[in-house]
Amino acid sequence: MERLKKQMEFIIEVDKAKKIIRQTYLADASRKEDDAEHSWHLALMAVLLKEYANEEVDLAKVVPMVLIHDLVEIDAGDTYAYDEAGAATKRERETKAADRIFGLLPEDQGSWFRTLWEEFEAYETAEAKFAHVLDNCQPLLLNDASDGRSWAEHGVKKSQIYKRNEHTGEGSREIWEYMKELVDKHIRLGHVIDG
Amino acid sequence: MERLKKQMEFIIEVDKAKKIIRQTYLADASRKEDDAEHSWHLALMAVLLKEYANEEVDLAKVVPMVLIHDLVEIDAGDTYAYDEAGAATKRERETKAADRIFGLLPEDQGSWFRTLWEEFEAYETAEAKFAHVLDNCQPLLLNDASDGRSWAEHGVKKSQIYKRNEHTGEGSREIWEYMKELVDKHIRLGHVIDG
Repeated sequence: MERLKKQMEFIIEVDKAKKIIRQTYLADASRKEDDAEHSWHLALMAVLLKEYANEEVDLAKVVPMVLIHDLVEIDAGDTYAYDEAGAATKRERETKAADRIFGLLPEDQGSWFRTLWEEFEAYETAEAKFAHVLDNCQPLLLNDASDGRSWAEHGVKKSQIYKRNEHTGEGSREIWEYMKELVDKHIRLGHVIDG
Repeated sequence: MERLKKQMEFIIEVDKAKKIIRQTYLADASRKEDDAEHSWHLALMAVLLKEYANEEVDLAKVVPMVLIHDLVEIDAGDTYAYDEAGAATKRERETKAADRIFGLLPEDQGSWFRTLWEEFEAYETAEAKFAHVLDNCQPLLLNDASDGRSWAEHGVKKSQIYKRNEHTGEGSREIWEYMKELVDKHIRLGHVIDG
């Protein structure tokens, strides 16, 4: 039972992901979403949008990867996509968090999750590239649905969105095309700054 | 692009799962959780606890099944586990919801999700039984972490928990043993009525 107990303790510990609030509003703009909701959305998108990955991806890796990709934020907090000061210390804060959080699991599962998280962060494999497509596309869809509220609040520029998405086309050409059309639409609407 | 557009519209429509509030409190009892958070938790549990399924289960089925199992509640609402009046009309309300919600997707994906949801509801395959183990275990873990708050508020009896879990042992003997110990603990603590 020692193994099951560790797994259950991890499962309860990560409940805290439900309290990590992101900068993106729900589609109806009623409130911001949390990491657990975001990760559920990405997992569902992985299943539905796999066919658009440029390279064949293994969902048995992509799905756990997106389910756990933000768990480090339980300790490290959410770093907003366009927060440059936060980005500077992000890696250090998140590595420490990964040590603690994945360390709660039995060794084999903790190492597996740690490896998946490192793979996501390294952004090199087909699965990591596709996971990043989803991670960048989902807030864009929510921004579109909520009249660009989060973009407008943060005064986000097209160049910032394009910089963040400089490798998105490597994961999925078609989804990146779809995303670019949305960005153009919100430049026309005045929610994203054309610069 | 017609296909991608339908998929994206579905992805935005199901954002509403984040607003369907369940009766279970978060582990820290600060608020009740929503369907998206619950489904994320189940998907993560599926990955971690697969080894305890009595029969070999295919995660390529279990994970999408738990990700979508509550989407019908977007139209039908959440029916609390121990709400007998609600249970009487649940099937009809949820079938109508399934028609509309899964009908938003391209036909192949809509049929697949519909089949997965029907399989979950029919409770017959190894994957459906394991998904129900997770669906019943997760609120119990949260109730345990939050000092049985939801049980106490609803005056829940041991017999009700056992009735709801009458097939849980068929999905996983070990997890059901773990759950029974938690129920006993909360009878001793006075959060669950011994009757």
